[in-house]
Amino acid sequence: MKTVHTIQDVRNQVRQWRQESLTVGLVPTMGNLHAGHMSLVKTAKQHSDKVVVSVFVNPTQFGPNEDFDTYPRTLEQDADLLTQHDADLLFAPSVAEMYPQETFTWVDVEHLGDRLCGAKRPGHFRGVTTVVSKLLHIAMPDHAYFGEKDYQQLAVLRRMVEDQLFATAVIGVPTERDASGLALSSRNGYLSEADKEQALTIYRTLTQARQAIEAGERDYAELCQQSTERLEQAGLTVDYFEIVDANTLAPAQKNTAALRILTAAFLGTTRLIDNVGTIFVDI
Amino acid sequence: MKTVHTIQDVRNQVRQWRQESLTVGLVPTMGNLHAGHMSLVKTAKQHSDKVVVSVFVNPTQFGPNEDFDTYPRTLEQDADLLTQHDADLLFAPSVAEMYPQETFTWVDVEHLGDRLCGAKRPGHFRGVTTVVSKLLHIAMPDHAYFGEKDYQQLAVLRRMVEDQLFATAVIGVPTERDASGLALSSRNGYLSEADKEQALTIYRTLTQARQAIEAGERDYAELCQQSTERLEQAGLTVDYFEIVDANTLAPAQKNTAALRILTAAFLGTTRLIDNVGTIFVDI
Repeated sequence: MKTVHTIQDVRNQVRQWRQESLTVGLVPTMGNLHAGHMSLVKTAKQHSDKVVVSVFVNPTQFGPNEDFDTYPRTLEQDADLLTQHDADLLFAPSVAEMYPQETFTWVDVEHLGDRLCGAKRPGHFRGVTTVVSKLLHIAMPDHAYFGEKDYQQLAVLRRMVEDQLFATAVIGVPTERDASGLALSSRNGYLSEADKEQALTIYRTLTQARQAIEAGERDYAELCQQSTERLEQAGLTVDYFEIVDANTLAPAQKNTAALRILTAAFLGTTRLIDNVGTIFVDI
Repeated sequence: MKTVHTIQDVRNQVRQWRQESLTVGLVPTMGNLHAGHMSLVKTAKQHSDKVVVSVFVNPTQFGPNEDFDTYPRTLEQDADLLTQHDADLLFAPSVAEMYPQETFTWVDVEHLGDRLCGAKRPGHFRGVTTVVSKLLHIAMPDHAYFGEKDYQQLAVLRRMVEDQLFATAVIGVPTERDASGLALSSRNGYLSEADKEQALTIYRTLTQARQAIEAGERDYAELCQQSTERLEQAGLTVDYFEIVDANTLAPAQKNTAALRILTAAFLGTTRLIDNVGTIFVDI
């Protein structure tokens, strides 16, 4: 695996692959890679002839009081892990390479990014869409892979790619979990073992809600209320617990056919997100 | 010259050219082509092996009270003119092809689009940048050509392409004028011969202002005031007359090294724009 730090190096490599008629997949990450990311890389290796992984902690998607400065940066281990998983190119640009001047240009997806995580992190999705659009312009991949763990992000990026007519297909990859069910996340590194035990309630509560719906429960507001209480009783501070339309992310109605259950909760200062579904209900 | 109406047809043609190692230039237009557009095509033919011209009256850049419905659509004549000028591909999509669903995604360039024409046409530049970004995703050209006639648009698009790291170079092409000096524009079709005589005052006033600066005038505010009065005396309703930094479009200061003079004025209900420069002054 080659590691490059400049846009030009990525373009040169991709151009060469194109001349050999090879397809290209892109896995955008913020680094501090774990088995969740490797699941994206494995999927990418199956679909695409060559796989580019970007590692870039993007400043424009962090709020002023968020963890941009302390976000874990572990490029050497990331490169080792990617080598083991047969990634073909690691693109690890500096902030100056990605933002050579203050950006005046923003790519913004209305509606889908306003609620849920977007409501508590103003500007977050605008930062994500702006930087992912740039990464697509750099690598011009056939496929781009994103985890379902960040389900709202996936929905926002799908819409961006559709609306903007990118020649790239967005592929969502199911959430990777540890043996206990906890969704893998770089932010789990902020948790003690006791915290992780507590955090497990998130997945258990999501699963219970899913099972209730599968058993016929249709009072979604009540189900969200009960689930929120359960999480709060376990010592979590719930940001939101919502049952939404899997495509539009609007609150589920009686006639919503495809459901996704999403939650965000704080454990101390660490904000954890998770989701389950998609559940198809007869309407 | 081939005429196509679908994104897929453009992609197929461009892919074939790429395989032959040919470079591609894109000239985005709204059609109703005249010698001004042909100047873009001629320049494109000089720089790029193959030239794609798009003809698309983009609804998202028109305000609710603007001339979207009545904007002249003359595809047959456009195709003839482009054939005469050796364009290689005419892309004339429908609105449904370019906007298969309501767009949630907007590409927005802050600051540069807020003043001048942007102040009076809210959302206009956002519509332009959103659609040009889409056209770049479709054609993936090496070069994209825009007229200096729409100078603010050119500056906004330059910034978009820089900020978003498109693999496309933006080329500005000098304004084409008729023998009398009137800048060519599709909207000139709304003017009678008497109107055109009156409209000539625009270029004359811009030229006079340029000559004054070249002769040493540095009181830009006073110069703009005099120029505005001259236009109003000729029966035009001035929207703005400004001397700005040619790069940032901010009002020129004593220490601004590169100046552009821009104006927009109404003749009846027809809004005409023009600009001259760039003037480099010793500071």
